[in-house]
Amino acid sequence: MNWAFPGDETPDPAVEHETATWGPLAAATRELVDLCVMSEVDAEEVAAATADVEAAVARLRKVRRQQTLGQEHLLNGRRRPWGNPVIGMRNPIAPPIQVHTEPDGHAECEFHCGPAFEGPPGLVHGGVVALVLDQLLGHAVGARGRPGMTGTLTIVYRQGTPLGDLRAEAWVDREDGIKTWAKAQMIGPDGVTAEAEGVFLLPRALRDRVPDAGTS
Amino acid sequence: MNWAFPGDETPDPAVEHETATWGPLAAATRELVDLCVMSEVDAEEVAAATADVEAAVARLRKVRRQQTLGQEHLLNGRRRPWGNPVIGMRNPIAPPIQVHTEPDGHAECEFHCGPAFEGPPGLVHGGVVALVLDQLLGHAVGARGRPGMTGTLTIVYRQGTPLGDLRAEAWVDREDGIKTWAKAQMIGPDGVTAEAEGVFLLPRALRDRVPDAGTS
Repeated sequence: MNWAFPGDETPDPAVEHETATWGPLAAATRELVDLCVMSEVDAEEVAAATADVEAAVARLRKVRRQQTLGQEHLLNGRRRPWGNPVIGMRNPIAPPIQVHTEPDGHAECEFHCGPAFEGPPGLVHGGVVALVLDQLLGHAVGARGRPGMTGTLTIVYRQGTPLGDLRAEAWVDREDGIKTWAKAQMIGPDGVTAEAEGVFLLPRALRDRVPDAGTS
Repeated sequence: MNWAFPGDETPDPAVEHETATWGPLAAATRELVDLCVMSEVDAEEVAAATADVEAAVARLRKVRRQQTLGQEHLLNGRRRPWGNPVIGMRNPIAPPIQVHTEPDGHAECEFHCGPAFEGPPGLVHGGVVALVLDQLLGHAVGARGRPGMTGTLTIVYRQGTPLGDLRAEAWVDREDGIKTWAKAQMIGPDGVTAEAEGVFLLPRALRDRVPDAGTS
């Protein structure tokens, strides 16, 4: 059911150009973010690095868009989430996570969660766990052809999630009318660290396009 | 009850030195993160900016710490969360949010949420809403003298949270033995956008220091 997330309408060469242009900047900035919390160089070196970053900012600031990437893409029928803080190619906050989905509503990802996401010492911030699982739940319901915004999100924390290499998966649990329930879990080296359930509401604009969406 | 978050043991001059050294780098990097998603300069300018960022990375990478800031601070009795992804002075992912707390367990903050936190077009990512509210709930129970890690977090989304200036508040709802229930809400220009409830469990090490903590 491809209409749910329609194939991106951006021509391939434009996608390649945008990736080649902005991908290296985002990648370098991710390293910079990590080093802001992990570097131990002396004050003089930090000052020199700050000047480098300010030079980059001065260049990029010359033309600033009027609308966000999300707003612009909405207008242009483009669905690539370049700016998303979890999966966005252009967003240095995003690890970025690559999500693999199946049409039955299964979604999964493997990713590295570095020190910039630390909450308790050595552990991923509980809110970052929620952020990643919320994103993954959205992929699951979207893959199932029942996209929507999160109505309710519940996270049960079973144990601390260690920083490092992690895996997460999500799946659609049940459907009833305009509502879809999806579940997800975060998995560390010692097993499941957190479980999530999300309730998603089908947007009004899509309700007449999904079978059985009128029953509740 | 100051023992819950003991006064940071770092001497004032060291705090001032760390803030003066790393604060400007983190601030410049926050602007850079914003521009990674908001700049519209041409490919040549982006390439030059990327080279600037790579130069900063090369400087900062010369000495990388072995432990995260959280782990190091734990060892040294330092509680300043410099690296926290919501409130950390050194973390460019953090807006950073400044939280004000009262001893009764009330916590609140005002902050600006920019385009790098976008989920749906023009709106804050639902997971980022969860991240901020989880952090704020933690401040509320900590201020009340009943700190802990989140056991369960539930977010109910009432309406989209627009990017821009936001306010959030949290408070302790009830206590029973080792458990503390706290509530929070995110508030945009059109009122409450999301409500949160967190259940916090008092860490074992603190249970004999809190009155009535043994009742359940």
